[in-house]
Amino acid sequence: MPKTPLRGNALILQSGGPTAVINQSLAGVMSAAGDYTDVISTVFGAVHGLHGLLYENFIDLSAESPLAWQDIANTPGAALGSARLKPKRSDLDRVFEVFFAHNIKFVFYNGGNDSAEAAQLIREEANARSYEIQILHIPKTIDNDLMETDHCPGYGSVARVVSHIIAGDDLDNRSFYNGVKINVCMGRHAGWIAAATALAKRGVLDCNDPSICAPHLVYLPEVPFQETKFLDDVQRCYDKIGRATIVVAEGIADHLSAKGASFTGEKDEFGNAQLSGTSGLGDHLSSLVKKNLKVKAELGKLRVRADTWGYLQRSLPGMPSPTDQAEAFWVGAMAVRYMMQGESDKMVTLLRVKAPGGGYRCETGLCDLALVAQKTKLMPPAMVNAQGNGVTEDFFEYVMPLASFLPTVRTLRGHGVSRKLPEYHRPE
Amino acid sequence: MPKTPLRGNALILQSGGPTAVINQSLAGVMSAAGDYTDVISTVFGAVHGLHGLLYENFIDLSAESPLAWQDIANTPGAALGSARLKPKRSDLDRVFEVFFAHNIKFVFYNGGNDSAEAAQLIREEANARSYEIQILHIPKTIDNDLMETDHCPGYGSVARVVSHIIAGDDLDNRSFYNGVKINVCMGRHAGWIAAATALAKRGVLDCNDPSICAPHLVYLPEVPFQETKFLDDVQRCYDKIGRATIVVAEGIADHLSAKGASFTGEKDEFGNAQLSGTSGLGDHLSSLVKKNLKVKAELGKLRVRADTWGYLQRSLPGMPSPTDQAEAFWVGAMAVRYMMQGESDKMVTLLRVKAPGGGYRCETGLCDLALVAQKTKLMPPAMVNAQGNGVTEDFFEYVMPLASFLPTVRTLRGHGVSRKLPEYHRPE
Repeated sequence: MPKTPLRGNALILQSGGPTAVINQSLAGVMSAAGDYTDVISTVFGAVHGLHGLLYENFIDLSAESPLAWQDIANTPGAALGSARLKPKRSDLDRVFEVFFAHNIKFVFYNGGNDSAEAAQLIREEANARSYEIQILHIPKTIDNDLMETDHCPGYGSVARVVSHIIAGDDLDNRSFYNGVKINVCMGRHAGWIAAATALAKRGVLDCNDPSICAPHLVYLPEVPFQETKFLDDVQRCYDKIGRATIVVAEGIADHLSAKGASFTGEKDEFGNAQLSGTSGLGDHLSSLVKKNLKVKAELGKLRVRADTWGYLQRSLPGMPSPTDQAEAFWVGAMAVRYMMQGESDKMVTLLRVKAPGGGYRCETGLCDLALVAQKTKLMPPAMVNAQGNGVTEDFFEYVMPLASFLPTVRTLRGHGVSRKLPEYHRPE
Repeated sequence: MPKTPLRGNALILQSGGPTAVINQSLAGVMSAAGDYTDVISTVFGAVHGLHGLLYENFIDLSAESPLAWQDIANTPGAALGSARLKPKRSDLDRVFEVFFAHNIKFVFYNGGNDSAEAAQLIREEANARSYEIQILHIPKTIDNDLMETDHCPGYGSVARVVSHIIAGDDLDNRSFYNGVKINVCMGRHAGWIAAATALAKRGVLDCNDPSICAPHLVYLPEVPFQETKFLDDVQRCYDKIGRATIVVAEGIADHLSAKGASFTGEKDEFGNAQLSGTSGLGDHLSSLVKKNLKVKAELGKLRVRADTWGYLQRSLPGMPSPTDQAEAFWVGAMAVRYMMQGESDKMVTLLRVKAPGGGYRCETGLCDLALVAQKTKLMPPAMVNAQGNGVTEDFFEYVMPLASFLPTVRTLRGHGVSRKLPEYHRPE
């Protein structure tokens, strides 16, 4: 039996790293809120999340042109502005002054596990103050590391982007000989993004043996990173196919830092060290390989390169996953509908259900904020291969529908031509 | 009056850095060669360019499945394998032994100004030996720096990719406050790729003032890079809009190296220093900004990040320019047709012509190899703005049809909400 919702204005905050589909959720909220103007008078947006809330910097989202929302939804980056700010105890008086001044009765907090924690803190304070307010958390993170939801809006699109990058990167790498290419992708604690690059293995049209398709080696933060093991893996791959196209999650820098190396930058208010926008890890692994790999002399000089993909993983326009777009919109719209059923203090979740035909289908649900706040969903062991350098079939089944597209490529069969001359020994 | 072509087998080589459409040219050659099987008996591919030629490592391209070519054409990376190898005088005996052994009468050299030089060397040697052979060069380079052609196949696709990256990158950067984001793109001597990011200015649906659209500052190798000027530019941009999204071509590292800094890596056989796959330049500029930018205290901590895009610029599947794809195929096909007219010792060019309706149109032409070999087409002064940190309208007119697509994005209009409370001073 549905509870009765409050009446008043709504506030939406975007928090943490943006995604390619974060504005889909914003558009979803606006679309659904338009059906309840008798209950939700105005939807305000906090400019730069908690920053906008504290400094009373709001915009009136109800005043945006209704015709603009589809384009806004398709635009990456946080349209409202995001923040990496944690509410302090001393901020709470101000938070509730602002809520009261603007008659805020509904809060939509769109973010990751840090913002779930912030939402929870505001909830507890509202109870202590007997301020009536409904708060729902809308999941968003490319990291895909929120508990209780099958996956997070934002992840499917980054999965599509990184799998395309690695498919192309291996084609680029194999264009030369003796290439070891190291790619550093995002993912501090969880390896979901690095793992998603494995999708590139499935789009190679002329490949009968996925084991030789890139990525050849994938290193996840879930598996303790050991330099000797890494070098053995690279050597084995190189000996087998003459090259290696490698993906490492940036989070493995922490494994190396624990042993004395230093790659990390600034820290935010949640204590998270900056790992992106700097490239020490790639350079470090690159120089390890250069120093240690035993190269076949006849193939010429070793070619080692490292790229750190940086922010484009989460911000590239033009390559979202349509499934991800639809789901991000949907969790925003459902947050409004749940709110109108009187729900509060929960996060909207995506639950994968058995579709009749065996295909992919999700429903939405709700879970307690406390189950999400400050928690991180790592990749389960069943999705990591026994060697700790790749993924299993379980992971492919999980990720394929989320990314929507495989990067499809085809190379030459390469029908050999008989040699007619003696071997060539090139003069020095 | 057309000359008579020779008769025999053809050899195609891919050379230098691959592109997203290099295999379109290969497919174009194969498509057209299929019309002249009485003249061109078999088309061989040299595996890894000159390497395959010297070591007699050929594949029989005529034996590939005809149905596979469309997928191969759409696949980035050099399907044949590329090389960065320069023929030495001492290699030439071997080159002609191989030509003779396989009855090679037609050579298609697909590459940049380095391979035009290699093609020219082989030509001169053929004349000296009275070995009858026709050689045509098919242009290919993301750098867009070949003389005599309006533009180079490969460039339009990289223009599309980098403009999308920068459109998304600025949305990501503006999601936070006080963000200075530095992006290092490819381009050693010429700034064509860096310049192409300016396309992102034209796809912002809600922007009446392109001067505030990203990229805000673009640094080209054509303009001597000065750190003080750079810092002044960044400060002015930051003072005006509270952030800066910046693009620098990797080639400006040379300007800094000349003053004692060190960013470059290995050198190839053409003497080109490795600039990609390492990120010293971004880190250097990043630390310059961190040390020198005067930040408005009320906006909080400065956030400086640097990304070096690396190889994905030229290898990303799924985001080619359709114009670039069609033209890359076309120059390959036309190379065969010119060959069949008895042409040799030339490069196929793209010539922009006035289309009747004023739209974009190209024709193909031919130019002497000597006009291309070892030469670099820089951006003309008319395409660089007076401040030396951006592009002019002339450049937009030039580049828009090549990329085929603008990255279209839309942000919120942001209707302000009146404040009801006194200013907040956040406790430390």
